Amino acid sequence: MSRRNGDDFVKLMLGDRTGTVEAVAWEGVDECFDCSKPGGIVFVEGRFSVHARYGPKITIEAIRAAEEGEFAEGDLVESSPIPADLLETDLRDLLATIRNAQLATLLDRFFGAETDSWKRFRVAPAAKFYHQAYAHGLLEHALSVAQAVSAAAAAFPGIDRDLAVTGALLHDLGKTQAYNDDPLAIDLTDAGRLLGEIPIGYYLVRKEIESIDGFDPELAQAVLHIILAHHGTHEMGSPVVPATREATLVHMMDNLGGRLGSFDRIERELAEGQSWSKFDRGLDSAAYFPARRAA
Amino acid sequence: MSRRNGDDFVKLMLGDRTGTVEAVAWEGVDECFDCSKPGGIVFVEGRFSVHARYGPKITIEAIRAAEEGEFAEGDLVESSPIPADLLETDLRDLLATIRNAQLATLLDRFFGAETDSWKRFRVAPAAKFYHQAYAHGLLEHALSVAQAVSAAAAAFPGIDRDLAVTGALLHDLGKTQAYNDDPLAIDLTDAGRLLGEIPIGYYLVRKEIESIDGFDPELAQAVLHIILAHHGTHEMGSPVVPATREATLVHMMDNLGGRLGSFDRIERELAEGQSWSKFDRGLDSAAYFPARRAA
Amino acid sequence: MSRRNGDDFVKLMLGDRTGTVEAVAWEGVDECFDCSKPGGIVFVEGRFSVHARYGPKITIEAIRAAEEGEFAEGDLVESSPIPADLLETDLRDLLATIRNAQLATLLDRFFGAETDSWKRFRVAPAAKFYHQAYAHGLLEHALSVAQAVSAAAAAFPGIDRDLAVTGALLHDLGKTQAYNDDPLAIDLTDAGRLLGEIPIGYYLVRKEIESIDGFDPELAQAVLHIILAHHGTHEMGSPVVPATREATLVHMMDNLGGRLGSFDRIERELAEGQSWSKFDRGLDSAAYFPARRAA
Amino acid sequence: MSRRNGDDFVKLMLGDRTGTVEAVAWEGVDECFDCSKPGGIVFVEGRFSVHARYGPKITIEAIRAAEEGEFAEGDLVESSPIPADLLETDLRDLLATIRNAQLATLLDRFFGAETDSWKRFRVAPAAKFYHQAYAHGLLEHALSVAQAVSAAAAAFPGIDRDLAVTGALLHDLGKTQAYNDDPLAIDLTDAGRLLGEIPIGYYLVRKEIESIDGFDPELAQAVLHIILAHHGTHEMGSPVVPATREATLVHMMDNLGGRLGSFDRIERELAEGQSWSKFDRGLDSAAYFPARRAA
Amino acid sequence: MSRRNGDDFVKLMLGDRTGTVEAVAWEGVDECFDCSKPGGIVFVEGRFSVHARYGPKITIEAIRAAEEGEFAEGDLVESSPIPADLLETDLRDLLATIRNAQLATLLDRFFGAETDSWKRFRVAPAAKFYHQAYAHGLLEHALSVAQAVSAAAAAFPGIDRDLAVTGALLHDLGKTQAYNDDPLAIDLTDAGRLLGEIPIGYYLVRKEIESIDGFDPELAQAVLHIILAHHGTHEMGSPVVPATREATLVHMMDNLGGRLGSFDRIERELAEGQSWSKFDRGLDSAAYFPARRAA
Amino acid sequence: MSRRNGDDFVKLMLGDRTGTVEAVAWEGVDECFDCSKPGGIVFVEGRFSVHARYGPKITIEAIRAAEEGEFAEGDLVESSPIPADLLETDLRDLLATIRNAQLATLLDRFFGAETDSWKRFRVAPAAKFYHQAYAHGLLEHALSVAQAVSAAAAAFPGIDRDLAVTGALLHDLGKTQAYNDDPLAIDLTDAGRLLGEIPIGYYLVRKEIESIDGFDPELAQAVLHIILAHHGTHEMGSPVVPATREATLVHMMDNLGGRLGSFDRIERELAEGQSWSKFDRGLDSAAYFPARRAA
Repeated sequence: MSRRNGDDFVKLMLGDRTGTVEAVAWEGVDECFDCSKPGGIVFVEGRFSVHARYGPKITIEAIRAAEEGEFAEGDLVESSPIPADLLETDLRDLLATIRNAQLATLLDRFFGAETDSWKRFRVAPAAKFYHQAYAHGLLEHALSVAQAVSAAAAAFPGIDRDLAVTGALLHDLGKTQAYNDDPLAIDLTDAGRLLGEIPIGYYLVRKEIESIDGFDPELAQAVLHIILAHHGTHEMGSPVVPATREATLVHMMDNLGGRLGSFDRIERELAEGQSWSKFDRGLDSAAYFPARRAA
Repeated sequence: MSRRNGDDFVKLMLGDRTGTVEAVAWEGVDECFDCSKPGGIVFVEGRFSVHARYGPKITIEAIRAAEEGEFAEGDLVESSPIPADLLETDLRDLLATIRNAQLATLLDRFFGAETDSWKRFRVAPAAKFYHQAYAHGLLEHALSVAQAVSAAAAAFPGIDRDLAVTGALLHDLGKTQAYNDDPLAIDLTDAGRLLGEIPIGYYLVRKEIESIDGFDPELAQAVLHIILAHHGTHEMGSPVVPATREATLVHMMDNLGGRLGSFDRIERELAEGQSWSKFDRGLDSAAYFPARRAA
Repeated sequence: MSRRNGDDFVKLMLGDRTGTVEAVAWEGVDECFDCSKPGGIVFVEGRFSVHARYGPKITIEAIRAAEEGEFAEGDLVESSPIPADLLETDLRDLLATIRNAQLATLLDRFFGAETDSWKRFRVAPAAKFYHQAYAHGLLEHALSVAQAVSAAAAAFPGIDRDLAVTGALLHDLGKTQAYNDDPLAIDLTDAGRLLGEIPIGYYLVRKEIESIDGFDPELAQAVLHIILAHHGTHEMGSPVVPATREATLVHMMDNLGGRLGSFDRIERELAEGQSWSKFDRGLDSAAYFPARRAA
Repeated sequence: MSRRNGDDFVKLMLGDRTGTVEAVAWEGVDECFDCSKPGGIVFVEGRFSVHARYGPKITIEAIRAAEEGEFAEGDLVESSPIPADLLETDLRDLLATIRNAQLATLLDRFFGAETDSWKRFRVAPAAKFYHQAYAHGLLEHALSVAQAVSAAAAAFPGIDRDLAVTGALLHDLGKTQAYNDDPLAIDLTDAGRLLGEIPIGYYLVRKEIESIDGFDPELAQAVLHIILAHHGTHEMGSPVVPATREATLVHMMDNLGGRLGSFDRIERELAEGQSWSKFDRGLDSAAYFPARRAA
Repeated sequence: MSRRNGDDFVKLMLGDRTGTVEAVAWEGVDECFDCSKPGGIVFVEGRFSVHARYGPKITIEAIRAAEEGEFAEGDLVESSPIPADLLETDLRDLLATIRNAQLATLLDRFFGAETDSWKRFRVAPAAKFYHQAYAHGLLEHALSVAQAVSAAAAAFPGIDRDLAVTGALLHDLGKTQAYNDDPLAIDLTDAGRLLGEIPIGYYLVRKEIESIDGFDPELAQAVLHIILAHHGTHEMGSPVVPATREATLVHMMDNLGGRLGSFDRIERELAEGQSWSKFDRGLDSAAYFPARRAA
Repeated sequence: MSRRNGDDFVKLMLGDRTGTVEAVAWEGVDECFDCSKPGGIVFVEGRFSVHARYGPKITIEAIRAAEEGEFAEGDLVESSPIPADLLETDLRDLLATIRNAQLATLLDRFFGAETDSWKRFRVAPAAKFYHQAYAHGLLEHALSVAQAVSAAAAAFPGIDRDLAVTGALLHDLGKTQAYNDDPLAIDLTDAGRLLGEIPIGYYLVRKEIESIDGFDPELAQAVLHIILAHHGTHEMGSPVVPATREATLVHMMDNLGGRLGSFDRIERELAEGQSWSKFDRGLDSAAYFPARRAA
């Protein structure tokens, strides 16, 4: 990413899978400007320094565009710490436990191995910032929430487990269209901003359901209610509030998964030897990692 | 409406277009119970009294079910103070001003004189309680909001007037399915409660748009954004917040129409000679009608 | 419970394990007044009626105090739907899985079969109204939360499972002193109101920890943090906000357990054939039970 | 505007009608310091660059104070995009439609062509930042709100149109004293900060009304209520909440005018080719301008 | 107070200085209706009973209007527990300590023994419900707040004590016009509702200040700021927030005085032997009076 | 404090009792890095400049570690403007006025001249940022709050003065453990973050009370309630809300003391000739100091 409006220096944001850093070039500005565009891949030489308040910076001494074959995408973008194949295997195992035939049919429309939907879902991120903001992040998130929903369904009475697991797997489906598919520059799409991830997902699932002959209308409403209510409150962007046990369960496990995902992200970014992070807006607290200090 | 669980008296809620009143029968309880069911129509004789704190009550002395032909529906249920035909004429006039062909086509799908959609829209209420909670109320509300949007679009720069008017006419379309069609007992449907009026309307419009060949996707998003954002904030149940001038305009005029509709309702219910109402939650204030005292 | 200030009638609240009902005596007022005191046990004859707005009422025709042996406590007060012995067995099974010796010691101080603490914990209610507001309710609640914590700890990375389960079992310990021990009239104690259940529990556990030789101070803070943070936010009465994965997990599972417990309570109170409850403040929604209508 | 505390460089904020930019001088610091004071007018030579995070900057190479006659005020400060004379004509047209003699008299006290009040009102800004933050901005804002009020008064029943238009024209009168009269450095006055624009305006109007013989006290309260309530809620700084149709209408149209004014401001500041702005606090959203991308 | 709409019974609210009670007449309805009007004074015979949920009630057996001379106003309405003469003496003592001549002059305009302002101030209530809702309540409240302000001004540095005491004495002046002067039926006036007590008081003081020759404008703003800011936040109805030490001090002492006044009111209404009140909205808590149980 | 991650420059935060400033070294980086560590004491030579947006900065030209004896701690860290001995004398005077023997005993446990508790309390800060964030700040704050409580207890009826003063002196006791004891780098401890200052103080006082034979349990609860409730609301971190006059009084005076302390801090930091500060989050306003402009 770069912006340039003068003739004396250029500021860039450089990034690889370990993070991003600001960079500045005072010489060779023209070369620098030519080879930098959003999502462009470059080799850089320079000095690295850290400012107490504004953070790290690279002073660029040389820069050139990378050629095909000079880099591996895996070095550039973070992805789920769990291999995608393993995530898929676990997903298929979970799908196999759904006994309700209508729900199994519905899930197959979205997660069937050959569908376009699955191809997009498999690689999509779960967010731009907060948690699982990387390739395969959506799959990792949906799977862990669904697994936790399945486990908790055994611990509390009165829950329709297949319905809850189905809702958990589909709850964030709208993110496949609310986020773009550029792993180097995750961002909301126009649809994501104008319509919102929840209405997009609700539309996709409702339209799919209406294409399945004989799908029970009450079951349909129960699934759609989980998707629409999964942010838990109006304030968090859900147009309806959970009114069923299953919607309550999926909302809470989604919330839990998001918060624990924030701990994972914060811990990765924490400097060695530190046990307290900065204040985190998602957690409304600093995060504490006692094991790190002990180690 | 009635409930009965003992053998010594029966409590009922009686209502006609002017309001509702609680009633109690101490004698003839069996007859009373037989002829009372939710939405049933009865003739009652009795004494009327008003309790300072609990309000008015009728002590039933005689009750019998009404026969077909003994009553006019117009006596039983309130409807818009403006005749439905007049509302329809004004709507057709407004529709005729839409020059954007795609939007005109879309509107015709919902308001075309012979469509099922129009038949339902024409009689639907706008709410259960707050404003325009009566037959034709939705039409009255949508029309006045759209007229005000059209007028204001001339007063402020940069507004796509046809887009804004289209959004205003369609903004509450979901209410046609979120409310039942029993004018004697307006209530939310299961879909209204589980999915919400906004997602229902968004689904109906999006599905219709996708059935129109060549509908501009950016225009589609702009219309759908108005519907999804028209409550103005997450807190009020919109999954997205207005991001365009047109969505801002429709939201504000809908809000204004709702508040002024509350003044209308409150004024109808106010006792003679009173200029101050009780505190009203919708207004977050008591309402003041100075003209009433002067008269 | 009764109050009486005149000479012409007496109003009482009568209750058994199925609920409470208002009652009124117009005759035999003196006898009625004599045998009614808060928590008193009586036999009543009379007529039962239901008022549309104010609910059910009994008109008392005869009333007398019950003698010892004429009633079973189980008829009068609700208790956990799961037998207390079964709850205890499950608790002992869960306790046996704690491998951290210090935590096991701490838990034994509170749940050891012969301790006073356990005797009180075993019968205490979990609340006055919302969920598990009955004998053994605290045990049922703490156990289900701890089981769900244990299950979820396997689904998410980085959690100290023994610490989280310990925190889950102890999180509501303060309720043993914040609520009185009268199963017929659950209420907050003065300490419960003036100090709060969280500070009481924190004090009990901290004092116990300080009496255990060599208890790791960092582990102690981690346990106490779970207790203090388990309401999740300042707004909900926690003096600190969850800053660790374990405190986050216990908070969320406690929250989930409370909400699902509300569904259980609401479903028990719902009239036959109804699938929607009234608006519930705890859920911030009406609750929906689709299975009930199907049945 | 400048601040200087060392002997090695000087930082300034430079601005003209198109915006502001930070500037730094590393040489000629003394000259630079001498000719820079808040609101001072200078000629600058230097290099312009843009920092990715901190935005644009000018490195000053030469600076000197401008002489009288070297600059036109219109180049330095933004003003309403509509010529002031046209705004005044429209205002006079609107004033001529007020039939209520008392209200017409009151308006003439403030908007009479020869009054001091009008001279100040005509040039005052409507805000420091958000919308119409430029010369003639107050007039532009009050006029458009009053026009929209007048138009909407025809669309909804029960509104005293003359009263509402009067309230709309006077609602922000307090800003004439709450903001200073330096178009180069719009800021709140001490009175604006200590008393607030609403109480200032209320005082001015009430005092004027009390100087008009025979002004109807009920009408006076109705006008003053519109002014005091026009922010709509306590949270937004109104000491009372709208309790009349007219106060509701003026509040909503003021709100609408302010929001649409924010769209205007945001659009002016948006870089070419961009259709989404940054998040805007006034709108609680980013703003979207689809037409810009299409163009 | 009475309302009557039928021919079979009448409900009234009866009250004396110890409180109010609902009453019902089943016989002699016409006589009852004739002699009951808001603020009317009657003698009643009847039976008193208490309902567990709806509270106490009197069944009227006989009622007649009281004649002049049959009653003492002191029996009918509550007034300050401190004699008005003593309050006035303390006020005069406090006024004598003001050394700033301009502030002394200003205070004399409102509290001068012969002024109309003082006559109204001396008897006015401080509220309709919460605290000091009785004759002389405003004087009692203003005096105690001013005394506490004077005391605290000595404990903290940097406070202009005369300014703060002046602000404290005048802070609620608007209540003299915001409440009616009927001690039997304290209520807000139209001005109180439409303009608010703060803008009314601010107007009265500002107009008075402007009539004093040579009053320092900065001192004037400081006094007016205290009045306008004394509710402390926008949410509580202040159009500006305290920006000076004196405004902060008056706001906090007013708040303290109001809360302690609520304790006084709650304690008076508490049944004997009770140490806990019901939940009180003003305190956001139940109130606890340990001494009562001990006694 | 310093951080360094490159080989070309070092950024430091330097501070003395008058404030802190950022510093940067472009040469002699190794020497600079060697002598800088958090809390280290150095001599620095360099140039000072002020950036309009980012504030002041020192460009380091020479730096060396200070030797013992080269500096006075009083030059490095701010402390209370009132000498500690004077604060202690005032505290002892106030303690001498407590007549309740149990409360006097309790206070002696914490403030007895020879106790460890007193030694820590005497030097502890009251905060990291907002008010009294310096050595002896806790003593200064607790003393002024207790003095104000004592004074106000005379002005309002029904207050147990000894109880309130005791609560005021002990209310912030937890800060002695919630903050570290490094006057050069005041920060929260792990206990302060994980447990919170209120639960820490409550624990210390409750444990001490339980070690005093025969301490009245009701009095104990009353003291502990003051400590637990002194932040006033759940939102501000109190697990319980003030339910007694004494808790209300201490909360309000603590709040007042904190706000006035913020005025003191802001005034110290204000540039000469300025009468308005920047917006302050603690006050939710800018602060105004009219005397400064007059002078």
